[in-house]
Amino acid sequence: MASSILSDCSSSATSRLLPLRRALLAPPCRFRPATVAAPPRRPLAIAAPQLPLLPRARDMASASAAAAAAAASSTDSADACAKIIDGKLVAKQIREEIAVEIAKMKDAIGVVPGLAVILVGSRKDSQTYVRNKKKACEAVGIKSYEVNLPEDSSEDEVLKHIATFNSDPSVHGILVQLPLPHHMNDENILNAVSIEKDVDGFHPLNIGRLAMQGRDPFFVPCTPKGCMELLHRYGVEIKGKRAVVIGRSNIVGMPAALLLQKANATVSIVHSNTKKPEEITRQADIVIAAVGVANLVRGSWIKPGAAIIDVGINPVDDPESPRGYRLVGDVCYEEASKIAGLITPVPGGVGPMTIAMLLSNTLESAKRIHKFK
Amino acid sequence: MASSILSDCSSSATSRLLPLRRALLAPPCRFRPATVAAPPRRPLAIAAPQLPLLPRARDMASASAAAAAAAASSTDSADACAKIIDGKLVAKQIREEIAVEIAKMKDAIGVVPGLAVILVGSRKDSQTYVRNKKKACEAVGIKSYEVNLPEDSSEDEVLKHIATFNSDPSVHGILVQLPLPHHMNDENILNAVSIEKDVDGFHPLNIGRLAMQGRDPFFVPCTPKGCMELLHRYGVEIKGKRAVVIGRSNIVGMPAALLLQKANATVSIVHSNTKKPEEITRQADIVIAAVGVANLVRGSWIKPGAAIIDVGINPVDDPESPRGYRLVGDVCYEEASKIAGLITPVPGGVGPMTIAMLLSNTLESAKRIHKFK
Repeated sequence: MASSILSDCSSSATSRLLPLRRALLAPPCRFRPATVAAPPRRPLAIAAPQLPLLPRARDMASASAAAAAAAASSTDSADACAKIIDGKLVAKQIREEIAVEIAKMKDAIGVVPGLAVILVGSRKDSQTYVRNKKKACEAVGIKSYEVNLPEDSSEDEVLKHIATFNSDPSVHGILVQLPLPHHMNDENILNAVSIEKDVDGFHPLNIGRLAMQGRDPFFVPCTPKGCMELLHRYGVEIKGKRAVVIGRSNIVGMPAALLLQKANATVSIVHSNTKKPEEITRQADIVIAAVGVANLVRGSWIKPGAAIIDVGINPVDDPESPRGYRLVGDVCYEEASKIAGLITPVPGGVGPMTIAMLLSNTLESAKRIHKFK
Repeated sequence: MASSILSDCSSSATSRLLPLRRALLAPPCRFRPATVAAPPRRPLAIAAPQLPLLPRARDMASASAAAAAAAASSTDSADACAKIIDGKLVAKQIREEIAVEIAKMKDAIGVVPGLAVILVGSRKDSQTYVRNKKKACEAVGIKSYEVNLPEDSSEDEVLKHIATFNSDPSVHGILVQLPLPHHMNDENILNAVSIEKDVDGFHPLNIGRLAMQGRDPFFVPCTPKGCMELLHRYGVEIKGKRAVVIGRSNIVGMPAALLLQKANATVSIVHSNTKKPEEITRQADIVIAAVGVANLVRGSWIKPGAAIIDVGINPVDDPESPRGYRLVGDVCYEEASKIAGLITPVPGGVGPMTIAMLLSNTLESAKRIHKFK
């Protein structure tokens, strides 16, 4: 996600999108410390401690029923605050389910899923992401393969490693850590990954199959898949509902819209050219915000009772924090949580789901390749 | 398109989608005879007799300026009726432009575009479509190749012919006439067509590239491309406008939504699971109706001044017609034309554009393969 350093919701970026009168009247969105934003209730932990592994969104109906019941019962409480979608807990639960499945597969056919990660250059953030992915793989029993190439490697060197992993039967998923150095063509490199091992789901063929009725992609991109998983596990009905996706990136917004559409929501996509985005968003029963603008979505944008999935992770100045900044979402949490029915916090919402879905895609790939059910 | 035999707008299909009270109050949509529905003005014929060939939608801005001026000036008239988008005339003009381009290419490099059509079985409607495509090819100078296979042919026989055309350098476009016999797998057959010759634009890789920012498809599916061409040539601004696509078929609705999105409209897709479709549609500056339900879209669904593109071609009973039926669109023309700013008639709107866009895609393919600009 692109990120913006903004001090609060009265930022210029937000003000430009809000009608002047409302922007003047609306107080700035002050952030709660992350610890306060953590979910006060954990419905899934109580309701569904033994959910089966659910690698595909459409298989989730039965599992989400238990979570739905818990979510529904907890709405009976008298407070007006949104229920918090605990992405950290759900991700943990999914990782546990994946570990169980992998152990079963290893016992039955002697195969463990393998994920290859190619990292070019020495960006600190990329190194951290790759390290986290490797750790997550190890924790569930996925064998990870890593190639680290220097910043000045040629495109051909990267392509050579992709070709090797494409033909390696112990590798079931291949991931090229982005961003790549400027001298490389992302499209050429990503298109070289075998469609059957494209666990990121970014290949245009996967996106095309996602868009088409009667077709299924090999893989669904991890972050939007995580958003859908959260909605399913919290029993949010999608069919027939109005959904608004804010942002239309190839990685999150656009595939999220296609997934909601495939689940029979009536979807609108809001983007930088949209006039009166707050009016459209206010019609939505489900909002997925993935635009990379801190606190863009104010309370006044939210339909009472809506489910809000906040994909944004934006650093904003915070002199009280030891790091000098804190992370906030695209949604003004404090305002939205008073109006929404369900909401993801930032951090601890969608974030932990992305790696969980990468593990899920890698397992799914190994099961498909080895015809293991 | 699926088609429905309905006698008028008070049909059961429409009533189910309209709130009961309005359905009872709304008078049935009576159809004008097709001749009356023909456009009273032809702005393009006056404004832009020499428009250059415009094979790609994004290149159309300059050409549409002249048409836009004509359209704008004609809105000064006192009547409250929508301007009619004359698809027949625009299609004729495009065919003329294509013929000029083909003659130029033949003179310059001695190449003429070639289109291969594969027809399996003896459905009368398919035979008519194929005959019409062949005639249209001949008229502009495209060489057409035809293979007619018996109904009981095997999938392998079809695949063999596709392979031959894929490797034939004189063939630049390959089209498999749908529907195929039931014993064949459409997906297998359509996926066998080389992505560089898929002039129908139905390959998932094409759809994926259409959906993604920063990517362009090899070909845009013909009917939605025709819808966009009509909007462009009539000077309808798309960027920043609200657009509603009714219907989400792989052939029309979904790619039309992706095209509008790529042109920076704020797009919502209305479908059979959408509640209160009339409320959403009424917010739209641009409506593309492609659902295959006669007269579904009533006047009350339309925002005053909106541009309405009606893709539906539905037969409805008409004892006064010699054939016993007449063709109507998905939009109740008589009602909508009193409220909309621009509207396509049925027939004579989108219909003639589809073949024109097929010719355009075939020419585009030949130019790309032979690097002719």
